[in-house]
Amino acid sequence: MRISELSRRSGVSIPTIKYYLRDGLLPPGRATAANQAAYDEEHVRRLRLIRSLIGVRGLSVSATKDVLAAVDDNQGDLHLLLGLVLGALPVERSGRPSRSGPEEGSERDAEPVAERDAGGAVDDVAALTAEMGWQTSPNPPAAQVISETLATMRALGVDYDWRSLVPYAELADRTAQLDLDQLQDAGDPLQQAERALLLTVLLEPALLALRRLAQEHHSALRFRND
Amino acid sequence: MRISELSRRSGVSIPTIKYYLRDGLLPPGRATAANQAAYDEEHVRRLRLIRSLIGVRGLSVSATKDVLAAVDDNQGDLHLLLGLVLGALPVERSGRPSRSGPEEGSERDAEPVAERDAGGAVDDVAALTAEMGWQTSPNPPAAQVISETLATMRALGVDYDWRSLVPYAELADRTAQLDLDQLQDAGDPLQQAERALLLTVLLEPALLALRRLAQEHHSALRFRND
Repeated sequence: MRISELSRRSGVSIPTIKYYLRDGLLPPGRATAANQAAYDEEHVRRLRLIRSLIGVRGLSVSATKDVLAAVDDNQGDLHLLLGLVLGALPVERSGRPSRSGPEEGSERDAEPVAERDAGGAVDDVAALTAEMGWQTSPNPPAAQVISETLATMRALGVDYDWRSLVPYAELADRTAQLDLDQLQDAGDPLQQAERALLLTVLLEPALLALRRLAQEHHSALRFRND
Repeated sequence: MRISELSRRSGVSIPTIKYYLRDGLLPPGRATAANQAAYDEEHVRRLRLIRSLIGVRGLSVSATKDVLAAVDDNQGDLHLLLGLVLGALPVERSGRPSRSGPEEGSERDAEPVAERDAGGAVDDVAALTAEMGWQTSPNPPAAQVISETLATMRALGVDYDWRSLVPYAELADRTAQLDLDQLQDAGDPLQQAERALLLTVLLEPALLALRRLAQEHHSALRFRND
């Protein structure tokens, strides 16, 4: 297809596509004439993933380039692919993300978030994930968020620890299974990665909004004076 | 108690307490000498609620004043109180929030969010809440969020409508019931309102983080190549 159709199919403007081509985010098309190239379905899928990484996940062009390179290295492994696009795994080239400390050339990504944070995150989230039977990568960014929440609760005098989160974790477990159910028929790995990104990141505010609506409903049932 | 103890008990600094007193957010203490006043438990509870409205929900001092005034008018009605502190209901003085359009002196709050947004929010969320059997106030801000999410999904080419959200809404319903269970033994209405605010707003990032951890776990179970 011509660049105009690529633009229409991907929802990305022609000048932006040209910028991604110059910058190497998008591989060149097949040259068909001095000043023309033909693009294929792979370009459409890749452009849609780029658009989602930048527009939905809010990555910079340079970070998007790193993620795409890692995606290219791991196309056969959907689990790794999802971890990369969702940000659960640090971006590293050449195969699986390292599990064992810094390696040359990866200083920027080698320092897990929780190592900067000291004991709290590790203890709280380790206890919670053990209770849930969840196997995750060591020190994922989400663990840091949970630990910070618990620390803030305690600082504000709320009696709350990881055990209070267990019933919520059970509901989150079912939510995550719903999320993954929706990837089953999403096509090839790049499409699944894009869909996972959209369903995860875009749905977040809506999930919180659903909780607010349900709170209002149940609050009325329990507490309203009529 | 003296202002120093009030500060210690509430976690709010003495200069900030003095500012809230001057500004009328906090009622004056009982004068005990020319330059001294005594404060009571009601001051502690009110200060903690102020701190949460400003520090956790991110309200301005002036918006906090409006919420507190409405809270004072509705102390007997915990459902209204929760709606006010969580932002489900517009802040209006003198009794129940109006359900029927603008009233004099309330132009700023009288325009429901969804009326600015036209059809989409109303249709999608009406269908969803009807399916769930949820009774909520008309056009709550959360409905707007859900509608915007669905519009964004569609704009990005994801085949998704309110029916796709029903399984998530069922989990949100159970989450909201957990939330409210934790208010049962929280004491008087001001304390329950403060706790509801903390548990709702502070927990939001942690709930999303739990979903990410669970996604990683289930993604490994389903997709990892070993």
